[in-house]
Amino acid sequence: MQRALSTTRTVGSSPNFPNWYQAIVREADLAEPSPVRGSMIIKPWGYGVWELMQKVLDRKIKETGHENCYFPLFIPMSFIAKEAQHVEGFAKEMAVVTHHRLKMIDGKLQPDPEAQLEEPLIVRPTSETIIGDAFSRWIQSHRDLPLLINQWANVVRWEMRTRLFLRTAEFLWQEGHTAHANAEDAIAETFKMLEVYRSFSEKALAMPVIAGEKSANERFPGADNTFSIEAMMQDGKALQTGTSHYLGTHFAEAQNIRFQNEDGDLSYCHTTSWGVSTRLIGGVVMTHGDDDGLRVPPVIAPRQVVIVPMLRGKPEDSDVLSHCEMLVNKISALNVFGERVRVLLDKKDIKSAEKRWDWVRRGAPIILEIGPRDITAGNVTYIRRDKLRDGDKVISNHAKQDSFVGDVANMLVTIQENLYREAKTRLDSNIRTDVTSMAELGEYFGASTGDDDDAVEFKGWVRATWAAPTGPALDKVESDLKKLKLSIRNAPLDQPENPGKCIFTGEDGVQEVLVSRAY
Amino acid sequence: MQRALSTTRTVGSSPNFPNWYQAIVREADLAEPSPVRGSMIIKPWGYGVWELMQKVLDRKIKETGHENCYFPLFIPMSFIAKEAQHVEGFAKEMAVVTHHRLKMIDGKLQPDPEAQLEEPLIVRPTSETIIGDAFSRWIQSHRDLPLLINQWANVVRWEMRTRLFLRTAEFLWQEGHTAHANAEDAIAETFKMLEVYRSFSEKALAMPVIAGEKSANERFPGADNTFSIEAMMQDGKALQTGTSHYLGTHFAEAQNIRFQNEDGDLSYCHTTSWGVSTRLIGGVVMTHGDDDGLRVPPVIAPRQVVIVPMLRGKPEDSDVLSHCEMLVNKISALNVFGERVRVLLDKKDIKSAEKRWDWVRRGAPIILEIGPRDITAGNVTYIRRDKLRDGDKVISNHAKQDSFVGDVANMLVTIQENLYREAKTRLDSNIRTDVTSMAELGEYFGASTGDDDDAVEFKGWVRATWAAPTGPALDKVESDLKKLKLSIRNAPLDQPENPGKCIFTGEDGVQEVLVSRAY
Repeated sequence: MQRALSTTRTVGSSPNFPNWYQAIVREADLAEPSPVRGSMIIKPWGYGVWELMQKVLDRKIKETGHENCYFPLFIPMSFIAKEAQHVEGFAKEMAVVTHHRLKMIDGKLQPDPEAQLEEPLIVRPTSETIIGDAFSRWIQSHRDLPLLINQWANVVRWEMRTRLFLRTAEFLWQEGHTAHANAEDAIAETFKMLEVYRSFSEKALAMPVIAGEKSANERFPGADNTFSIEAMMQDGKALQTGTSHYLGTHFAEAQNIRFQNEDGDLSYCHTTSWGVSTRLIGGVVMTHGDDDGLRVPPVIAPRQVVIVPMLRGKPEDSDVLSHCEMLVNKISALNVFGERVRVLLDKKDIKSAEKRWDWVRRGAPIILEIGPRDITAGNVTYIRRDKLRDGDKVISNHAKQDSFVGDVANMLVTIQENLYREAKTRLDSNIRTDVTSMAELGEYFGASTGDDDDAVEFKGWVRATWAAPTGPALDKVESDLKKLKLSIRNAPLDQPENPGKCIFTGEDGVQEVLVSRAY
Repeated sequence: MQRALSTTRTVGSSPNFPNWYQAIVREADLAEPSPVRGSMIIKPWGYGVWELMQKVLDRKIKETGHENCYFPLFIPMSFIAKEAQHVEGFAKEMAVVTHHRLKMIDGKLQPDPEAQLEEPLIVRPTSETIIGDAFSRWIQSHRDLPLLINQWANVVRWEMRTRLFLRTAEFLWQEGHTAHANAEDAIAETFKMLEVYRSFSEKALAMPVIAGEKSANERFPGADNTFSIEAMMQDGKALQTGTSHYLGTHFAEAQNIRFQNEDGDLSYCHTTSWGVSTRLIGGVVMTHGDDDGLRVPPVIAPRQVVIVPMLRGKPEDSDVLSHCEMLVNKISALNVFGERVRVLLDKKDIKSAEKRWDWVRRGAPIILEIGPRDITAGNVTYIRRDKLRDGDKVISNHAKQDSFVGDVANMLVTIQENLYREAKTRLDSNIRTDVTSMAELGEYFGASTGDDDDAVEFKGWVRATWAAPTGPALDKVESDLKKLKLSIRNAPLDQPENPGKCIFTGEDGVQEVLVSRAY
């Protein structure tokens, strides 16, 4: 997998996937590290992608009956202490606010000792506790159910090793929280939102995923069941890009979320939560990036068509610009994916070739270059980002302008489909189903390359049968897999009738699971 | 100003404006206090209003050439220390993160002493410093200018006395930050965004405002000029609902934001910043609320038309529901304000009368009640929230269904206009221009009613001439005004040619300013 990220396709080529990932994030102008350890700055192109992801997903969340709210950034430490009591495996790495004032002491600005909070506040790592507290006030009767809430917010988790979009101290996400009268309704909600995520990933992000249930050890702390969608990155590793949890009555019991049913009896609610984050952008990079930078699926491309005017600092420049503006008007009047086509005329005062490559690296789906000769001939010259090269040569397409304008919406649909098909083929053709023992698994994936497993060979996933153990037996499977840097990703929703023998123990299997390296 | 917030218009009537405000925020289901001191929970109806405000304003911000980004929540204390050095009047009440882990010590969850941060982090009160730091890296050449950035984010300021939406520890806002090659461009930007705010307030929020320049003492710390929009609330007080700052080269010098001009010389950029926040929602409440609750201007109403089906637990209920669903389909296919009409069929399992009054209190612009008799007769019965009552009697309107569907989009436009006109009349008819001395000012506004000035009589504003003093002379004016609980709001942009005499000193005046009580 030789990859280059330059105008000449020669600089920066590297078989090191993490370096390639970082290069795309940088060269596509998506984000950069910030002066705050582990926090990132999401730049306009990256944030534009996120805004479009939000727009598409938010519509789905609302169509399925949920309403958006906003809950406080800070959570009282007592809420966290309560959760720590009833939840095993609770993570304690979080940002703690202890003071509410700075003071100049001995010529140095410092937290004012006199402004220490009586109770420290935690910057939300997730909002189960504070939303649960509100639910306990909002829900009285069965008439208040289901309560279907979503929040778009920033959250903070103190991560030791960070990587832009994939794992950062602060990230952006949505978190859905719902309460229901019974298990059946809550489980149906859990599956409904998992399906919303699956369909959103595949349709909007052109990123095929496999939806399934996590193993008992990989559940969200306090959940009865955790489901995930998992996508295959171009290095073969799995990226968990969304989760949906059925929380049973655990949180309801801890937080006293109860309702009076029609007979006047009090019962605990069954709750769910589900979320996706800016991690999805990392998934898009590792799904659709190539040696020339990012390729953004048109549905989430902030600019679907970019026009680069060929200017030479001559009088005819103004004709070129006004012709391009006319073209912008024509194209932006078109519809695709239920919205107007997003087109930009790039007037920045730099060389046309530089502009072209900036947009190639960012991954704008269609890039037009319009010069005086094109105008005279009534032609357009364009690049399709999904079919950029023939060998090393860049493919420059030519068309009559009218015919291009007539085709451009369909072309965007085709690009979206091509990106999906390419990723879907990679996923489908890289899941081995013929591995029947731990030994074969070890043979296939090979030994770990040490602490830095960044440069491993492409392997894909294994779909194998297991007995779905719990307790110590599950711990053993996980620790054995961990030695190979592998993990159980999930048990896909679609399962065979007769799963065969467990590859770990040889006993009768219960279900098939995906095993792979993962982020 | 007797006000009631109940279905009978008799309960809760109170001449106390702050109580009335709180009652609307609560009864219209906009927000509620949270368990975190000074932070609020924004509930679905309130957040829906905010989402629509964001949508309309975000479009304007993008149309004027700005791009959205996202910068870290945390700011290194060293950045704040630097700002404290170069900025006078810098506020130090802010949330300080000092630890990154909790630990169970002696059976009690506490900040882990071993996880103390080397440098404390500040939860952003505003992002000038961290965005300025990025600008210093992003800007090299005049080709990089103007740099036009906006961010939608949560910010935290440790306020001692909080009031939902008006002043909370955490709030949501947008903050624009731009860099320019010279003062002229930066000042033009400052005015451009002030005008975007003015027009947004008046058109989307139906909230008339007066745009003008703040006095020297009221500038944003570090700004050369600060401009604001000020709206008149129903108690006559002013609410500052947006600001736009020309920052000169102060921040650029402190943060080394420089560019190379066409001759190769290095110059400091001129920067601006501008913002509006969830405070706008408080402004909408105090502009459009009435004795029956909130009235939401249709442009920002999450539901513009609500249909309440008259169900009686009888077999014909299903006919009523399917008829209402047909009506939803017809109405939601209509366009108003460039979008589809937002219509809801309220199927909640509570009594129709209760639903009706819930929507009256929330301020849905049009509320339909549809029962079997309406269906048989081909009629609709509806309430217009802007014309709810005739005396004490609720006005129930009747129309042929087809004619209602044909009119409903226009009716929403009319409601938007009516709300604006009503507020505009209040503003225009309550600015006295005949006050010519401090004595008259004191006589008009009367003495302060003590610390609690919540129950003061409606007074409106005074527009008077002054000499625009600075330094100690300005301090004196401000302290004299403060004794009357008054302040200079701004010097409106439109000024007379000959301003007359200063009401404070009798000397020749320089400009007219607005004087009033304020939030």
